[in-house]
Amino acid sequence: MKAAIWYGAKDVRVEDVPTAPPGPGEVTIEVAYCGICGSDLHEYADGPHAIPVGDPHPESGVAAPLVLGHEFCGTVTEVGDGVTEVAAGDRVAVEPHYRCGSCPRCLAGDYNICRHFGFAGLMGHGGLAERATVPAYMLHRLPERVSLEQAAVFEPAAVALHAVRRAGIHPGETVAVLGLGPIGLLVTQLAALYGAGRIVAADRSPVRRELALRLGATEAGADLSDVVGGEGADVVFEAVGSEGTLRACLAATRRGGRVMFLGLTGTVSLDAFALVNNEQTIITSVGYRDVHPELIRLVDEEGVDLAGIVTSTIPLEHVVRDGFEALLRGEEQVKVLVRPGGQRP
Amino acid sequence: MKAAIWYGAKDVRVEDVPTAPPGPGEVTIEVAYCGICGSDLHEYADGPHAIPVGDPHPESGVAAPLVLGHEFCGTVTEVGDGVTEVAAGDRVAVEPHYRCGSCPRCLAGDYNICRHFGFAGLMGHGGLAERATVPAYMLHRLPERVSLEQAAVFEPAAVALHAVRRAGIHPGETVAVLGLGPIGLLVTQLAALYGAGRIVAADRSPVRRELALRLGATEAGADLSDVVGGEGADVVFEAVGSEGTLRACLAATRRGGRVMFLGLTGTVSLDAFALVNNEQTIITSVGYRDVHPELIRLVDEEGVDLAGIVTSTIPLEHVVRDGFEALLRGEEQVKVLVRPGGQRP
Repeated sequence: MKAAIWYGAKDVRVEDVPTAPPGPGEVTIEVAYCGICGSDLHEYADGPHAIPVGDPHPESGVAAPLVLGHEFCGTVTEVGDGVTEVAAGDRVAVEPHYRCGSCPRCLAGDYNICRHFGFAGLMGHGGLAERATVPAYMLHRLPERVSLEQAAVFEPAAVALHAVRRAGIHPGETVAVLGLGPIGLLVTQLAALYGAGRIVAADRSPVRRELALRLGATEAGADLSDVVGGEGADVVFEAVGSEGTLRACLAATRRGGRVMFLGLTGTVSLDAFALVNNEQTIITSVGYRDVHPELIRLVDEEGVDLAGIVTSTIPLEHVVRDGFEALLRGEEQVKVLVRPGGQRP
Repeated sequence: MKAAIWYGAKDVRVEDVPTAPPGPGEVTIEVAYCGICGSDLHEYADGPHAIPVGDPHPESGVAAPLVLGHEFCGTVTEVGDGVTEVAAGDRVAVEPHYRCGSCPRCLAGDYNICRHFGFAGLMGHGGLAERATVPAYMLHRLPERVSLEQAAVFEPAAVALHAVRRAGIHPGETVAVLGLGPIGLLVTQLAALYGAGRIVAADRSPVRRELALRLGATEAGADLSDVVGGEGADVVFEAVGSEGTLRACLAATRRGGRVMFLGLTGTVSLDAFALVNNEQTIITSVGYRDVHPELIRLVDEEGVDLAGIVTSTIPLEHVVRDGFEALLRGEEQVKVLVRPGGQRP
């Protein structure tokens, strides 16, 4: 089968590789779609960041070179010994968090912060391929009314929903979102669905601000504090990942308010005196847990369209040119989906 | 009357000043006790920090020189026009937060983060004096079984209780406290009362660790992470106020856990990548709101002794020598109370 394999920074190759049959507890799926995530882009641009090189990841047993892509869904083709949850022909969304199942966090149900934190497609083989083999526990069967086009964005939607849950938005609260990539846009859409009042969306790109307004933002602008105004927002989502944007988020948060820090960056310096005197809380969110059933319900029962962030769908063989390189070049793309089968399933 | 007046760093003078009669909505009390807080010590050592110099504070109308001391209680001697809540002879604890009553936070009930944030005794005249005149809204009448000795520590206990509430300790959780000054010790005691499981107390001082064990800590040591061990604590209280101790607290917090940042410091640099990947939350707490009724109940109905942190009681005329200078010299003192009347009331 064809797969996009990460060998190193700026070195992702679409190659023919043997299809691994599913081992015990594993499932092989024919991949319908695999989205390109900002993390994939970072790995392509100047990785490795999360990709294991040398020592294999303890849950996947894999180190680079590996099949990239963790935002995928498809149809089950084969199941390994002991798998009863799904069967060949089932359409499934993949929740790609590895779980050791035995660390204190897994035992507490917080499997997204397992001691062996990782994703299929970053720390093990993923879904930028015609077929993918993953542990059965990663799969969510899709009801009839939930299309694979919708399931294709469940992974970033899961990140957004977990963050929205952790932020604990109260009905009518003013929510602000800084950074309107796929996550920021999905946070905007979900905040609107879950009872936020004013929703202020900020990004330098007018195209993304326009999209945010279509997805539920009540106001949008380039400068967060300017648009928020007044005493500041109740909750501000930082969906960029930089020291400057984190500080901008704190400055746009009211006294007693919360900043949800979603972006990944390095060392930041913060005014802890102001943080305490303003009684602000910094909440963080990584990955997701227990959100896929709700995403399925939103699409199935509420008819929510989560795929509004998708701006192009490309074949696997062009993943570098029309995927990674196009995304690195500019802002015209938001979410790029890869269609490994070469045709809509 | 005699009062300890802050003129500048290392310049606190006990002087004879006229007693101001209470204006409308104000109450004059004969001060029974006034504790010396770390904030007072900072103002004495190298202030001004919070004390207004030049421009008066908008709620108190006062700038330095002013009467220091915000941890006070006493007996009402005179009430101003319109005061119906208390009467002469009532024993009262003072909750010294100023409230403008009209900003968004006051209107939401979060008066501790009023736009005119401040305390009587730091941003206005306080209680290191024979008598003090304060707004009536600052007063809590004491039931018969609650002594002025207990009320003398309500102010630091209020800081601790507000922080414990904001930390949201779940029954049986592992709590750690770094820094065993009055606040850290009271957090230890209250965490034990409100359902914490393991309570790990850390401080360089063996004397303070011993006191923490008497107040409810289950373990104590000089190095936080060493004593906490394992995957880390569920909640860690930072009660020192420095970059190093904040980092030590984050390092001793489990994945998905909370750090309650109580100490005041300046700019800190933090590893935001680790913070997000560990899905940790930084909560902050400043002052208190709505906690005094519960402190009164704890003493009145549960018989809790909050005054275990008191290590000496001194007369007002020796506040500099036996108060500020003694506290600056070393660790042998925890909470020093000043008895302005010169005798136990």
